[in-house]
Amino acid sequence: MLAVAVREARTGLAEGGIPIGAALFDVHGVLLGSGRNRRVQDGDASTHAETAAFRAAGRRRTYRDTIMVTTLSPCWYCSGLVRQFGIPRVVVGEARTFHGGHDWLAEHGVAITLLDDPACAGLMTDFIAARPELWFEDIGQD
Amino acid sequence: MLAVAVREARTGLAEGGIPIGAALFDVHGVLLGSGRNRRVQDGDASTHAETAAFRAAGRRRTYRDTIMVTTLSPCWYCSGLVRQFGIPRVVVGEARTFHGGHDWLAEHGVAITLLDDPACAGLMTDFIAARPELWFEDIGQD
Repeated sequence: MLAVAVREARTGLAEGGIPIGAALFDVHGVLLGSGRNRRVQDGDASTHAETAAFRAAGRRRTYRDTIMVTTLSPCWYCSGLVRQFGIPRVVVGEARTFHGGHDWLAEHGVAITLLDDPACAGLMTDFIAARPELWFEDIGQD
Repeated sequence: MLAVAVREARTGLAEGGIPIGAALFDVHGVLLGSGRNRRVQDGDASTHAETAAFRAAGRRRTYRDTIMVTTLSPCWYCSGLVRQFGIPRVVVGEARTFHGGHDWLAEHGVAITLLDDPACAGLMTDFIAARPELWFEDIGQD
């Protein structure tokens, strides 16, 4: 499932964007929607990878049967999305380059799988080194 | 400033949508962007009023000089947005019909002004009575 999110992240990088991707699956592994950070591509500060995947999955009555997969530890904004909509499981590609709200989600009963995937970490390490101002803009740090 | 958010909420209601509106201002009271819940209008589960206002304000280097005004207590998703981007002040129209994450934001240093505005509360009370299934869908409750 991580491969779908990584593919989104790589597409974002090729577009000149921030290489974070995400995908929402059901418990049977069926892809419901995927997306990537679109700050640069759409000039849209509100579209993080997880919110893009959530949007792409369309309107749903419940998220109890879904899994959010993301290349990077979800920020507070995306962690809030997971908590509000009751997504019970999050697979995190890596949390080396950014430690978001996944511990908070775990405290609130969300099952977190932290993969520490070298490909995900490599994408962000290289990106932060190349475009630090864009990265800090994306997480709201001056 | 609340009037801008209420106007967005009323426009949303007239469109057949969920009547929640929000606006982002700078500290001088200049409107940076406003928006409304667009679940029904756009079939977009990711666009809550606060995220719509945030998006409409465009890309910004910092949010330290901004105020988020919303007709309703922000859900976890929108509270996460406020925390991640360091928005230091939130004006909440009402929290009678829904108690979101504004206490959590206050614990983390965000200045919260809770107005308990009758117009805001009336909009949501009437809406929840008329369309409970749509309201529960919007906050991810089965």
